[in-house]
Amino acid sequence: MKLYNFFRSGTSFRVRIALNLKGLPYVYQPVHLPKGEHRQDAYRAISPDSLVPTLDVQGDPDQALLSQSMAIIEYLDETHPTPPLLPADALGRAQVRALAQTVACEIHPINNLRILKYLVGTLKLSDEQRNDWYNHWTVEGLKSYERRLQDLARQRAAAGLPPSVYSYGDTPTLADCCLVPQVVNGTRFGLVYEDLPLTMAAFDACMKLPAFEQAHPRNCPDFEA
Amino acid sequence: MKLYNFFRSGTSFRVRIALNLKGLPYVYQPVHLPKGEHRQDAYRAISPDSLVPTLDVQGDPDQALLSQSMAIIEYLDETHPTPPLLPADALGRAQVRALAQTVACEIHPINNLRILKYLVGTLKLSDEQRNDWYNHWTVEGLKSYERRLQDLARQRAAAGLPPSVYSYGDTPTLADCCLVPQVVNGTRFGLVYEDLPLTMAAFDACMKLPAFEQAHPRNCPDFEA
Repeated sequence: MKLYNFFRSGTSFRVRIALNLKGLPYVYQPVHLPKGEHRQDAYRAISPDSLVPTLDVQGDPDQALLSQSMAIIEYLDETHPTPPLLPADALGRAQVRALAQTVACEIHPINNLRILKYLVGTLKLSDEQRNDWYNHWTVEGLKSYERRLQDLARQRAAAGLPPSVYSYGDTPTLADCCLVPQVVNGTRFGLVYEDLPLTMAAFDACMKLPAFEQAHPRNCPDFEA
Repeated sequence: MKLYNFFRSGTSFRVRIALNLKGLPYVYQPVHLPKGEHRQDAYRAISPDSLVPTLDVQGDPDQALLSQSMAIIEYLDETHPTPPLLPADALGRAQVRALAQTVACEIHPINNLRILKYLVGTLKLSDEQRNDWYNHWTVEGLKSYERRLQDLARQRAAAGLPPSVYSYGDTPTLADCCLVPQVVNGTRFGLVYEDLPLTMAAFDACMKLPAFEQAHPRNCPDFEA
């Protein structure tokens, strides 16, 4: 498999984590977003929407170029089921997907590079307004994430289950693949995470695992300080 | 089942379509977003993040409050498999999910009510700037959607398959549940859809089905002109 991605891209980071958790080797193919490599013809032939990541599953039963990080991770989970990144029951899967989508639909899309560029480039907002924007939506979204974890913790306690180690249960899931890159990204903007005890406990537990640490931007071959 | 939702909410519309396609009866519980009902304590007890839709699957094997529209639709597809809203093969599922996420992660989050309010209320942008914003991201996203459909059409033709009737194949999928509300929403902002032949053909095919037409905002009990 070959992953077209960029070290700082949060959606790329999600897929790197999933590949590592599954123990799947892959070729790391950097696409330099600030230099605009994703908009050049060579990459447009790979990705019709000029977005990273793209996973080329050559060698897998399917020969295809896959895009959209959550769709890629679900594909990997279906074709390489061990270890699972979603619970075995439908309700658990719904809860993990809702956590993942809290990041992937409520935080990340509003705060990615092209949006921040539009705010400053087209709308002529100041860097301060841009950073306030980033922080506002990230904090709002992570508070939602925390409320979900608190709800799930109450449900587990009521059912006599021990507290979750990660976002959902005692193994990392699709939710953690989305959470960790968002938290890491926020630190670039100087965000200090307060009042997010369960969220940050899940983050800390993940970062102790090599699969997460090795996928971190600072450990990518195209990393720039 | 009871669906907490709002007639004009695109994510609510997605779930209404899926419930109709599955032939599942539900109680329609309106939550008036412009009046701020989603932020009141009564609804906060239902939805920790004050977002619609929430599906209360009382009566289903699980007694739970589900949120995030794509997670809800996948839950419905798993617990009520007929008719399926995702293809039977992993690659097909990845492609349908990627289409759905092109709407759900690349268009809708940037253009929903709270974002548009922030642009005008907090950033003091003009209505014209807000509408330009809306149109820019919707058009960009639907162009991506169209490029995906063109790619898939080429793949089908190469495999000797007939053209898709809907976004993917000859039955509606999760992708159509996301596409149709986005297209309908754009018309409120005066968007004219050009150069989207496959996308609009899929939209038109969907709107001929009662499941889509009955889920349309104009046919909701809380509809306001």
